[in-house]
Amino acid sequence: MPYYYFDYNATSPISKRVVAAMQRGFEEFGNPSSMHEAGKRAKRLIKQAREQTAAMLGCKPDNLVLTSGGTEANNLAIQGRLQACLNNPGHLVTSAVEHPSVLEVCRHLSLVHGFETTFLSVNKQGHLSPRELEEAIQPNTQLISVMLANNEVGTIQPIRRIAEIARRQRIFFHCDAVQAAGKLPLDVEELGVDALSISAHKFGGPKGIGALYVRDPSSILPILHGGGQEGGLRSGTENVLAIAGLGEACAEAALDVREAAQSGGRLKRKLLTALAERLEDFTVNGVTETGMDDADSASLWNTVNLRIDGVDGQELAEVLSIDHGVAVSVGSACSSGKHQHHSHVLSAMGLAKQEIESSIRISFGKTTTDEAITYLVQAITEAVHSLRSYAI
Amino acid sequence: MPYYYFDYNATSPISKRVVAAMQRGFEEFGNPSSMHEAGKRAKRLIKQAREQTAAMLGCKPDNLVLTSGGTEANNLAIQGRLQACLNNPGHLVTSAVEHPSVLEVCRHLSLVHGFETTFLSVNKQGHLSPRELEEAIQPNTQLISVMLANNEVGTIQPIRRIAEIARRQRIFFHCDAVQAAGKLPLDVEELGVDALSISAHKFGGPKGIGALYVRDPSSILPILHGGGQEGGLRSGTENVLAIAGLGEACAEAALDVREAAQSGGRLKRKLLTALAERLEDFTVNGVTETGMDDADSASLWNTVNLRIDGVDGQELAEVLSIDHGVAVSVGSACSSGKHQHHSHVLSAMGLAKQEIESSIRISFGKTTTDEAITYLVQAITEAVHSLRSYAI
Repeated sequence: MPYYYFDYNATSPISKRVVAAMQRGFEEFGNPSSMHEAGKRAKRLIKQAREQTAAMLGCKPDNLVLTSGGTEANNLAIQGRLQACLNNPGHLVTSAVEHPSVLEVCRHLSLVHGFETTFLSVNKQGHLSPRELEEAIQPNTQLISVMLANNEVGTIQPIRRIAEIARRQRIFFHCDAVQAAGKLPLDVEELGVDALSISAHKFGGPKGIGALYVRDPSSILPILHGGGQEGGLRSGTENVLAIAGLGEACAEAALDVREAAQSGGRLKRKLLTALAERLEDFTVNGVTETGMDDADSASLWNTVNLRIDGVDGQELAEVLSIDHGVAVSVGSACSSGKHQHHSHVLSAMGLAKQEIESSIRISFGKTTTDEAITYLVQAITEAVHSLRSYAI
Repeated sequence: MPYYYFDYNATSPISKRVVAAMQRGFEEFGNPSSMHEAGKRAKRLIKQAREQTAAMLGCKPDNLVLTSGGTEANNLAIQGRLQACLNNPGHLVTSAVEHPSVLEVCRHLSLVHGFETTFLSVNKQGHLSPRELEEAIQPNTQLISVMLANNEVGTIQPIRRIAEIARRQRIFFHCDAVQAAGKLPLDVEELGVDALSISAHKFGGPKGIGALYVRDPSSILPILHGGGQEGGLRSGTENVLAIAGLGEACAEAALDVREAAQSGGRLKRKLLTALAERLEDFTVNGVTETGMDDADSASLWNTVNLRIDGVDGQELAEVLSIDHGVAVSVGSACSSGKHQHHSHVLSAMGLAKQEIESSIRISFGKTTTDEAITYLVQAITEAVHSLRSYAI
């Protein structure tokens, strides 16, 4: 049985270029802080990878803090920014559809340290309203954190407008771009954010490595203390091998992200058209239009969240996996097996419990082929028919 | 020119077995939290690696929290344990010769959160006194953190006795075993610790992965919040590739650690004997006897910290690197280039500034050969003679 992978938003296969870069990296075993040759070679490798990452984001290498992934980057942005406010806890603004590594940090800060958090609601498409965000701001608002693209439904938030509001009110604005990086062109200057998180394994890089862009590195404090690596903002011996992988993934994305978005957008339209021809009673959760910017109408080209009436999403995913060799997901990987049928994102978008339970997430990548999409549509159609007939 | 590496305490080359395990790991790209086949395969790989790591430490797999390395493990042990005490900051006991990832966390907790920290002094050999430790304990002492083996001089602390004191007084005892793991047999039950940190890259594994053993996982709280991986104690998509490497490094160490310590001890005696025959006016900082337990006399078999009169350690390390292809270090890698001549460890052992400045650290591994030791002695002898003659 062939194996078709449609769960790129959980994690992506490592690209061939990245594997090759990491193979070379196996030879650079030195500690980048060491003064001898082995250390210098490892340090050079990190310098190059940092430059590649900075080039993808349009920032200076010194504005990047390399972390162990997106979760640490989000924690560092929020906890790191608010470290200095622990004795004077104020107000935070985020949205109800953020990743758990933003939501749980805000909840922790509220519960343990007395911050107040506003979780902005979203509409049926998953968009928050910049006007509501502006109205939520209080005199003591210390931070705004809003994601660029949602991991479950792909909806892209109006980041530039949020950044304008934040700048006007002089509030630190962090953007979780973990699902957007490598899929959309990103430029931190153009976006106007104060901090932005990415994670390599979402776009062809290895797991265990990410980066936080910070416009002003002195505006945050570390959460991991020790040897003072990463300009004192992230102690710990650098993960040289994974950093090499991050750099290569960024270099690759910087080259082909526009092309990937274009051809991916075509595949998404093909998928939706083919499904509409063959499948009855289904709905796209979120926005169907793809886009490369933060226009209200746009969502990620690689993500389709489907609600199929009369079918249990979990059962459908299992039939697709076992009978058809197709990997899709129910909700995000982070919540798999826990509250899989209780997606906080779909719930915030106003879906009823039964609608959430009949939803699956399809997410693909730039190497996904037309043939794979055709196979997927066929597999879904068959699986849905068999589940629906079984249900009767 | 050949390249001889004597900086294993900064980081070790990745072992062949570990590279092979990681090569296989490249194929397991799934997110371990995903329910489909790719996810299950990644999850199985992590399960196996966790079992291998637990076997090396003599604990259950569920008592391990996998982290991004030793620094995060130390931060998690100390910050994680004291999270619940932030509203009631008490007293911490540690030593003056700990790694920065322990010292800086204690300093941070003292400075920002009002904890009081006792930094226990050590004697000329680098040993702390269990009696002094016991006397330092106050009614409000909340945590003791003492390293197993020192990274700069190799001195092994009397961990079992400290654990007894901690247990008697019901104080949480964390042990930083980052430099001991893979070099000495470790058994957390026999040591009697409540928490213990290790880092893969110090013993043939990759960088960016470590583990914290915790006797009672409910005794600590997370510092990274999010998807709830690692039993809720460490959120973030698991670094599957590096975890595979950690597991293999632990499996390898569990097999050959006693043999490595024996043959390494022989190499260390050979090194010291040969140096004594050829070099004048040098002293070993710390303890010369090697050992496999925590006897007062023992130090790590792989570490020799040398003080050579009339020679600048930094200059000696540079001559060894440039003229002889020999990598040694001055102090720890973590402090290289910053306060390289101001080792806090040697200073705590009572060395004067000039004595510290004339010291170098030699650290080797289980694959180091007799021939490499002979070459090293020759290189040091020549380099010291040339530096001394230059000085005149």
